[in-house]
Amino acid sequence: LRTDPLMYQGGAGGMLPARAPMRVLDPTFGLDFEAEVGVVVRATEQGISPSDALDRVALVVLLNDVTYRGLAKDELAKGFGFVQSKPPTAFAPFAVTPDELGSAFRDGRLHRRVRIHRNDALFGDLDAAAEMHFSFGELIAHAARTRPLAAGTIVGSGTISSEGETAGCACIVERRMREQLQHGAASTPYLAVGETVTIDLVDDTGNSVFGALHHEVIA
Amino acid sequence: LRTDPLMYQGGAGGMLPARAPMRVLDPTFGLDFEAEVGVVVRATEQGISPSDALDRVALVVLLNDVTYRGLAKDELAKGFGFVQSKPPTAFAPFAVTPDELGSAFRDGRLHRRVRIHRNDALFGDLDAAAEMHFSFGELIAHAARTRPLAAGTIVGSGTISSEGETAGCACIVERRMREQLQHGAASTPYLAVGETVTIDLVDDTGNSVFGALHHEVIA
Repeated sequence: LRTDPLMYQGGAGGMLPARAPMRVLDPTFGLDFEAEVGVVVRATEQGISPSDALDRVALVVLLNDVTYRGLAKDELAKGFGFVQSKPPTAFAPFAVTPDELGSAFRDGRLHRRVRIHRNDALFGDLDAAAEMHFSFGELIAHAARTRPLAAGTIVGSGTISSEGETAGCACIVERRMREQLQHGAASTPYLAVGETVTIDLVDDTGNSVFGALHHEVIA
Repeated sequence: LRTDPLMYQGGAGGMLPARAPMRVLDPTFGLDFEAEVGVVVRATEQGISPSDALDRVALVVLLNDVTYRGLAKDELAKGFGFVQSKPPTAFAPFAVTPDELGSAFRDGRLHRRVRIHRNDALFGDLDAAAEMHFSFGELIAHAARTRPLAAGTIVGSGTISSEGETAGCACIVERRMREQLQHGAASTPYLAVGETVTIDLVDDTGNSVFGALHHEVIA
């Protein structure tokens, strides 16, 4: 986790629109969201260094890496990565060039707060950079170690995390793990039909940078 | 292996041309080839059945799923699948519609022999269907269990295998594992600079169906 990125390859065939519903499919699948920041790169050569890799960032995006936790455990045990446990990822309406983000995009990280609401309740209010162990430069270089990356390749930060308990979480499973550790059992359920999830990233005046993701949960 | 497909997601950003060189990059990376058959699907709905999935096959392809064995072990242990250990996959020059394959494409498998040469020596001469545990219908349905597949999605069979020792192997690592079992140590090395790999699939008159893959190995 801290010495070598845990990176998986997701499906490139389709994306979930920012306002499209998320599907439960089966209650045992354990539908969860993951708020994270990503970058879209220009053509990137194999073997690039982390510092050069940062220059290949064309756009910054906000995304919801939708996950079926009930399927992820078995796929993790197989070692072959996530296939069924990662349905299409959702992206916020706007992608933003690094220069528009100014000094908020520095050290290969986006220093902005992400606010996640589950229904009307605040679920997390987190700094997207504070616990990002690897910079986007390091993550791009990791992905490009043995191959070039095509222009348009999207590299995600991993779920935004926070060790501070007051800040909340960017995904349900992290909250459940904390409950497990503190109380011996997880009490927060995964998403059910009729709920909503809203993910937004705001600048220092509180304005949305990418537009919000907003999903209803359907069967 | 036999009850649930071991399926990983590969990079979709770029492919290796059929006659392009394969790169060693670092001798410790353990460059290997994997001969396999794949299918390109039309738009496929989430939750499709294996029998309906077979109707979504638009094209059949022959491919070399290039692998760095020296990097695969650590990535397998992480559980997140293959990122650095799977550089771009190479595809044979022609893709073929199922009707052109006639009865050779039946039961969701391609009943044709694949011949692999390492330099001038025959490395494997294998039936692409004989040990394919899951049909392409089952593999497509597995991939589409929680999401639709975009038109153009490529689903691979997995490395062609043969339990018969006389038929050879479709990848170096399988031969090395057999050597390990029989002699206590693997003696066949991974690819080195200057070698060549040729993969071809032939019909019952010995004619190439997809055109051959032919790669020189460079640094």
